[in-house]
Amino acid sequence: MPRPSNPEVRRRLLDAGLALVHADGFAASGVKDITDAAGVPKGSFYAYFPSKEAFASAILEHYWSDIETRLLPILDADGVVQERIARFFHALADEHEAGDFLLGCLVGNLSLELGGSSEPVRTELVSILDRWDAALTACVRSGQQASGGIRKDVDAGELASRLIEAWEGAALRGKVTRSRIPYDRFEAVTVAALLH
Amino acid sequence: MPRPSNPEVRRRLLDAGLALVHADGFAASGVKDITDAAGVPKGSFYAYFPSKEAFASAILEHYWSDIETRLLPILDADGVVQERIARFFHALADEHEAGDFLLGCLVGNLSLELGGSSEPVRTELVSILDRWDAALTACVRSGQQASGGIRKDVDAGELASRLIEAWEGAALRGKVTRSRIPYDRFEAVTVAALLH
Repeated sequence: MPRPSNPEVRRRLLDAGLALVHADGFAASGVKDITDAAGVPKGSFYAYFPSKEAFASAILEHYWSDIETRLLPILDADGVVQERIARFFHALADEHEAGDFLLGCLVGNLSLELGGSSEPVRTELVSILDRWDAALTACVRSGQQASGGIRKDVDAGELASRLIEAWEGAALRGKVTRSRIPYDRFEAVTVAALLH
Repeated sequence: MPRPSNPEVRRRLLDAGLALVHADGFAASGVKDITDAAGVPKGSFYAYFPSKEAFASAILEHYWSDIETRLLPILDADGVVQERIARFFHALADEHEAGDFLLGCLVGNLSLELGGSSEPVRTELVSILDRWDAALTACVRSGQQASGGIRKDVDAGELASRLIEAWEGAALRGKVTRSRIPYDRFEAVTVAALLH
């Protein structure tokens, strides 16, 4: 059977599946739930994705490349490095708040749901976190070089990883408490504490 | 029907269910998987737990009260407060490492899998995180009072929350990368950065 190539169907599956998995989790979102939400026949799922795990990797890529396009440029804008970093995480927090803190970060969600049980999804997650690290590392390094006030005794990549990990923990607590407080705490205090 | 009261059966369901849900997630662990692993008839599940969500709350309590008993006393031991806190998180990381970083923290896992979709489980998670906060807050406060070198310009409870959130993010990254590096980074650097 030739591989189908209707990009519109694939896109609808990704959009609908991302929304479902983000809200309910991966195992709780059945293939039929996804195809129903996308308005396509159930059979078309496996025509576009060889497995449900492959679909999880595809929605992660769909989710993260969208954030890279829309929000990562904040890190490259003008201004003080620490403020750019805080603005980037602030924009992410705004999106979580727009969803009433019900969803959290899909990267974090699937890290904990599938990081221990699915090797292909874990590989995709490692790759996304590495890309996030790289973008933040470049920003932190520019702050170390240009008298930006960022500590120079620790490698920029190390500082970037700490920020991402502390952020994911803040988003976790924000999802449980349905509150912006952990995000605000991260933005107001943890960013400075880790960078200086 | 009278409520059954065989504590041994309930305990087997909790032990087997905790292990399954910790490894595979909540939605991926079916009631029959749990009763099979516990070696009890499927029907006995609902005799002990009114719903699968109630079971999730019960295994969270089972998991966390065990950690409270075994590891929280480290926070009350003798010694410098920052070192006690680092030792407590070190002991938690040792347990994650003993499971080859496949499991992560059950509190974090279910926070992200169910925090947005199950109100009873979310309530249980908030309660556990509050208890954890309280224990850590008492330790941090003692370090503020006794010239323990802990910053006094920020409320002890605020410092405790930051530590827990940064720790959960470290455990998340550790599960994805199957590595102790994020835990070590938290222990060696983030604890000090947040407390001073």
